[in-house]
Amino acid sequence: MKANIAIVQAGGPTSVLNASLAGFLEAAASSERYHHVLGFCNGIEGLIKNQVMHLEGLSKARLDALKSQPGAVLGAGRYPLTPERLSKVCCNLQLREISQLVLVGGNGTMWAADQIAEACPDVQVVGIPKTVDNDLWGTDHSPGYLSAAKFIGEAVRSLALDLWAMRNFERVRVVEVMGRNVGWLAAAGSLAQTSLPDYPPLHFYLPEHPFELEKFFTKVDEHLHRYPCLLVIVSEGIRLADGSPVAEFEIGRCKVPGGAAQMLSSELRNRGIPSRSEVLGILQRANTWSVCERDRQEAIFLGKQAIGVLGQGKSKVMLGLPAETVDFAEDSKAQWVDLKSVAGLERPVAPCYLTESGIDPSFTAWLQNKMGEPLAEANSALQVWKLAAEQLSSNPVNRQSR
Amino acid sequence: MKANIAIVQAGGPTSVLNASLAGFLEAAASSERYHHVLGFCNGIEGLIKNQVMHLEGLSKARLDALKSQPGAVLGAGRYPLTPERLSKVCCNLQLREISQLVLVGGNGTMWAADQIAEACPDVQVVGIPKTVDNDLWGTDHSPGYLSAAKFIGEAVRSLALDLWAMRNFERVRVVEVMGRNVGWLAAAGSLAQTSLPDYPPLHFYLPEHPFELEKFFTKVDEHLHRYPCLLVIVSEGIRLADGSPVAEFEIGRCKVPGGAAQMLSSELRNRGIPSRSEVLGILQRANTWSVCERDRQEAIFLGKQAIGVLGQGKSKVMLGLPAETVDFAEDSKAQWVDLKSVAGLERPVAPCYLTESGIDPSFTAWLQNKMGEPLAEANSALQVWKLAAEQLSSNPVNRQSR
Repeated sequence: MKANIAIVQAGGPTSVLNASLAGFLEAAASSERYHHVLGFCNGIEGLIKNQVMHLEGLSKARLDALKSQPGAVLGAGRYPLTPERLSKVCCNLQLREISQLVLVGGNGTMWAADQIAEACPDVQVVGIPKTVDNDLWGTDHSPGYLSAAKFIGEAVRSLALDLWAMRNFERVRVVEVMGRNVGWLAAAGSLAQTSLPDYPPLHFYLPEHPFELEKFFTKVDEHLHRYPCLLVIVSEGIRLADGSPVAEFEIGRCKVPGGAAQMLSSELRNRGIPSRSEVLGILQRANTWSVCERDRQEAIFLGKQAIGVLGQGKSKVMLGLPAETVDFAEDSKAQWVDLKSVAGLERPVAPCYLTESGIDPSFTAWLQNKMGEPLAEANSALQVWKLAAEQLSSNPVNRQSR
Repeated sequence: MKANIAIVQAGGPTSVLNASLAGFLEAAASSERYHHVLGFCNGIEGLIKNQVMHLEGLSKARLDALKSQPGAVLGAGRYPLTPERLSKVCCNLQLREISQLVLVGGNGTMWAADQIAEACPDVQVVGIPKTVDNDLWGTDHSPGYLSAAKFIGEAVRSLALDLWAMRNFERVRVVEVMGRNVGWLAAAGSLAQTSLPDYPPLHFYLPEHPFELEKFFTKVDEHLHRYPCLLVIVSEGIRLADGSPVAEFEIGRCKVPGGAAQMLSSELRNRGIPSRSEVLGILQRANTWSVCERDRQEAIFLGKQAIGVLGQGKSKVMLGLPAETVDFAEDSKAQWVDLKSVAGLERPVAPCYLTESGIDPSFTAWLQNKMGEPLAEANSALQVWKLAAEQLSSNPVNRQSR
């Protein structure tokens, strides 16, 4: 007898979350093992409220289009799973005779997946990693991260060139990047530096190192003695030595990280240094134009692999990308780990990728290798300027007028 | 005898400000009328402080690269022109025997250009329009605007799909767009709607209409009765009926528009409606990836035309783009207007482009025609969802569980 299978997209969307869904649906359709292929809506909420849609009838053209759509077509979102709600989930899965369940999400979703697997022993449960923050263990990196990293690299590069042009008006620009409690996304700003080798060094502040305000001021002062302007990249989740966040704000009953850039640029202005803040915001996880092709392919790959792993009878596992580059043409396989080994845990940036003052070049090399594509070239403008700066300093009229 | 000519980039950078510079330099090099081709650095500040660079030796490869660089390679920035400083400018132009001066900038720069032309009667002064805000009179639209508009269209589209996915967590997202005192950029958000015809209507608030908080609340409530989520686009410069800004903040001694989105989403949360704000920020004027090809070509075109118009002996004029599409292959000519007719003036969005509740479709059609390229297709995900929504409402289990 054919089985019923269901999928859930949970947490915040990414640029390639729908690509995983499309890969899953393609593989489910071609496996011929399934009667109904269902999607629960709005993440965990749909599992609890029993809101599903039938996905078995989607055309190939629609699936192909879906592979390039940001967002989460099923609806994702945040919704806490309480014990009472968990038993509703089990009822709903039973009611619809669903024997296989796939959850695409981050470490919170993997925790929920593990809870569901424990509570509904008749259901095979498999997780697919998805997070722009890249804070999941058990996978080399998570689908969603590379596209967000590419966007951040291009955005930081653009903001750096803009600041260079505005340096008589604004000397320090503080850019806030997503990432929750880890610095993988902020570290991706180092891509901009490889693309602008002549630019003054960027400064990075990640949650992996305690933030010290006085040290921050000292480094700003030292930098401005040598260079006309400074671009600082801060993680939204930076914390003081006592563990308290540098800044956060409340939305309803949720505390959300954010506000560090605004706070720091305000502190700089109080010290007489012209400074502004920029928040890269939700475009980091939502943008359509900086999707990393390899990220998209990896998301599709893991969606397909879920069907394969379920066919092997596996359950209570999260799929992951191996450290070596996946060859999509070959019959590459995903790796998997126990859900319990990743559920609710956060993976910080590896210490070897961080230096006392910033990002180790080995991190940027690793990231570029994973992305498999460079940022567009953008150093010409600065080279022109460098010529100019040399002229300026060698020109007696200019020297006199300074 | 060959003349010396100089160019200045002033105000905030755009994605195509360097393209105008490159066009100017190409035409200057091929005209053979010039001895020195100079660039003043850091906008008006460089004119005052006599900081120049020699630009005549740049290779074709470097000029071609410059055409795709965001920012302002000469440095731009804001620097007030006082009477005392104006006489310094005249001295510096005389000192370097500069008889032709080109300023690329917005309405503030055109005011400065007019002042300089009056104070230095021996210097031919020509302005090239440049503003993402599109608030200059005397030209159909300004270089910089179309690229910023394209970015905003794509960003709003991405944020709309993301909000759709997160609608169980966040019902109203308020997106703040640049534009100073006019709504051309906010109106460009309507591009997203053409690209997502099935999306709930977007709401727009522009400085051209006085903002009323109670009316805003009423419209939000009405919308949320009919749709699961709402994306609101507000200009940074929206004002109350008494002319005071809805929000602004201070950077040093400057008052800068901004903060309206944050304020409005906070007000909504106070009324129990889950809401967040997003500020598109400086990427609107700085981004490298959403450059509109026609915008870039128009910027190059006007840079070249400046040399032609100066050759005809014109002065005290600003070049402009005609209403009809420029044919770059043909020998199209720029139009020009007296500097005095544009200096310091702001052009609001034409009333015919605005409806009581938003943006008239004729505006979006005009903008798409000017851009000459569509946004990428992105409606598939919503079509899939629409199918789902129909299933949900026709499914007795779902109805029961609501």
